[in-house]
Amino acid sequence: MHHQLLSARIPTNEVAAHIGERVTVTGWLHSWREMGGLSFLVLRDAWGTLQAVAETENELLPLRESGAGVESVISIDGQVLAMPQAPGGIELHELHIKIISPVSEPPVVPLNKPRLKAQLSTLLDHAVVTNRYPTRRAMLRLGAGAMQAFRAVLDERGFTEIQTPKLVAAATESGASVFRVDYFGRPAYLAQSPQFYKQIMVGVFERVYEVGPVFRAEEHGTTRHINEYVSLDAELGFIEDHFTVMAVLRDVLAGIMQTLGARYAGDLRLLNARLPVVPEEIPHMHFREAQELIYRLHGVDERAEPDLSPQGERWLGEWASEQFGSDFLYVTGYPMSKRPFYTHPDPMRPGYSNSFDLIFRGTELVTGGQRLHRYADYLAALARAGLPVEPFESYLEAFRYGMPPHGGFAIGLERLLMQLTGVPNIRLAATFPRDVARLTP
Amino acid sequence: MHHQLLSARIPTNEVAAHIGERVTVTGWLHSWREMGGLSFLVLRDAWGTLQAVAETENELLPLRESGAGVESVISIDGQVLAMPQAPGGIELHELHIKIISPVSEPPVVPLNKPRLKAQLSTLLDHAVVTNRYPTRRAMLRLGAGAMQAFRAVLDERGFTEIQTPKLVAAATESGASVFRVDYFGRPAYLAQSPQFYKQIMVGVFERVYEVGPVFRAEEHGTTRHINEYVSLDAELGFIEDHFTVMAVLRDVLAGIMQTLGARYAGDLRLLNARLPVVPEEIPHMHFREAQELIYRLHGVDERAEPDLSPQGERWLGEWASEQFGSDFLYVTGYPMSKRPFYTHPDPMRPGYSNSFDLIFRGTELVTGGQRLHRYADYLAALARAGLPVEPFESYLEAFRYGMPPHGGFAIGLERLLMQLTGVPNIRLAATFPRDVARLTP
Repeated sequence: MHHQLLSARIPTNEVAAHIGERVTVTGWLHSWREMGGLSFLVLRDAWGTLQAVAETENELLPLRESGAGVESVISIDGQVLAMPQAPGGIELHELHIKIISPVSEPPVVPLNKPRLKAQLSTLLDHAVVTNRYPTRRAMLRLGAGAMQAFRAVLDERGFTEIQTPKLVAAATESGASVFRVDYFGRPAYLAQSPQFYKQIMVGVFERVYEVGPVFRAEEHGTTRHINEYVSLDAELGFIEDHFTVMAVLRDVLAGIMQTLGARYAGDLRLLNARLPVVPEEIPHMHFREAQELIYRLHGVDERAEPDLSPQGERWLGEWASEQFGSDFLYVTGYPMSKRPFYTHPDPMRPGYSNSFDLIFRGTELVTGGQRLHRYADYLAALARAGLPVEPFESYLEAFRYGMPPHGGFAIGLERLLMQLTGVPNIRLAATFPRDVARLTP
Repeated sequence: MHHQLLSARIPTNEVAAHIGERVTVTGWLHSWREMGGLSFLVLRDAWGTLQAVAETENELLPLRESGAGVESVISIDGQVLAMPQAPGGIELHELHIKIISPVSEPPVVPLNKPRLKAQLSTLLDHAVVTNRYPTRRAMLRLGAGAMQAFRAVLDERGFTEIQTPKLVAAATESGASVFRVDYFGRPAYLAQSPQFYKQIMVGVFERVYEVGPVFRAEEHGTTRHINEYVSLDAELGFIEDHFTVMAVLRDVLAGIMQTLGARYAGDLRLLNARLPVVPEEIPHMHFREAQELIYRLHGVDERAEPDLSPQGERWLGEWASEQFGSDFLYVTGYPMSKRPFYTHPDPMRPGYSNSFDLIFRGTELVTGGQRLHRYADYLAALARAGLPVEPFESYLEAFRYGMPPHGGFAIGLERLLMQLTGVPNIRLAATFPRDVARLTP
């Protein structure tokens, strides 16, 4: 019963080690050009592409007979030749081709052009196939790398992975934007975040993380929002304040960038992505200082506002870049009025919070902060927010029976990829995006 | 801004290295007994428990004054003494106690008894707090370890992690048991499995896995079913047949057991869990042979049935254990009639499939197999199943544009934990279970 996963097959990226030998590669027929009596076939597998050159009609017979064109799954057995002018410096010759799954009709969006040219909607309608395109694949692979690095950094720091329910009984953070589910005739909702559960689990494991889907029923059709996304959530207990959380987030980002740089260099190159350097200490400034700075440098007075404007964030990003050479800037102490009820106030300035936003290249990437940890504070906060206690009773049980000072953060995976690679629309950073108009593929 | 995660604090499991020194531990006041003029406090943190002994009322003053009892979050600064009769052989003395979050009322279910005694429903109603109990914590930690090992084995074998949508447009595998969601006024459904998406992504990365929630709207209230669970899904291309998949699954299980044995020995002990040995080659037999065997050994004739009975599976489990000393047995070749439409038939015996169940200690644990990979075969299979093509159009696009022979499997995380630890109800293997009657906590 022992089966080699690749048996006789060799991945395309290992063929160069076999010059002068015969090898078998299998994958998709990426392209097929005829030129000067020669046929140039490019085979694509999960690891890359390889050129194979047929010099006789006989070699092509299996393709001709089955009518197999691009995207057919085939195997090619051939002689590996060093060929400086070929892509990658090698080529297969004297081909024996076998057809595994013949495809006679090319995909709607050609996958073998130097650029993936299609309207965004066409690209997404056919994501099942367009995800095979090298730059699409590179994007999704960066996502896999980011998840892996996120976990690795936190595993190393004693965090425990959790998986918490997505079907919940009560709309939690903001009632308006939740999806409603028919749960055996009763209403249920899709979790907008694992916020409550990750806090509860701090009472169990002290430090927890979760990688999973979150659901937002928001109707806005912006280039920065989708309705289901992957959230990288962390929460930890026994913190001093939000600065402890910010230090962990720094390490997480440093770990992600380090992993991507070390193991995904080819994908980054393909996407023209420039990795940020994560400074040992990410510069930080208080929300009020940030408003003052914007006023001083740009004459725009946002000082009466309870939040930063997108333009304000861009200016702060530029400033951090010029001042510190940093792509990142923490803004701390957002007004309590703009933060959810569980936010911990700044003990020195109670109108402001022990929370932060992380601005990455001029746009908010991560939100986090310290949470309330005493039961009485929760009761008071709910009353202040005009919220009833009853739907929160299970959540409150955690605080009723002892919780340490704690806090955390959430990174939206697709948002991270978007800002890292500079694609103009978050849908291009998602595997199969969901928006108001889109539920398939 | 640099903050040590633990600052002056020492985890309880490292205190033994500090005999003769003063240390600070922080956590929950797990228990508090008075005996012979002494007060025995046990402090619990994420890593274990530690006994602290107060010899004077003065040391207890902070607890007395705040009315803090069990589950209060406190810090204890004390002298580490070697004390052979103490649990773990060490104790803290000469205590300075600080109260972080006082709790005056003990939890409904006591967390400091040798056994967690409560009705199942009470236990689950208060899972927010009962998950703090050492055996509950051990169970959830084994789950974290299993997820980590699952990923590690597949990462090593060139698999790519994917995250696929949970909100889908069409009920896929079995229309009756899906949850319906109100998606901006249109119906949507919660994914019962990532089956279609993981197959599609084989066309992108060849080998993929996903760890994520799946949703089953089945009304049965059995001890083996919950309505939301964590699925460990894998799918791989360029297989020979289902035996390639079975070989990968064997390696995954071996990796999980190896990781749990090496890193979670304490948790396994606490749960009285006996780890299975995963043989180099898991014994396998054909469905028809299995029926014959049951008939021959037990005189029960199931040979006209299209599936195995639970009793039949138990007998097969016993047989594999006696015959091979194996806790595992593959049964292959289930009748096509009992398998989903995308199942690949056995080319030699078309009424039977290239699929398998893995029986673990007499109960089915994993289902998997080879899938169809040719477009025409899908059209024929849908027609045979009486299913319309239209809702499957995006899925079919993958096969229309070239897919290799492929297959995969799915392990239910809670099911795995249940069978591994022998708990009588799958709800005891879930963090916050969901069933027909339960949506909270």
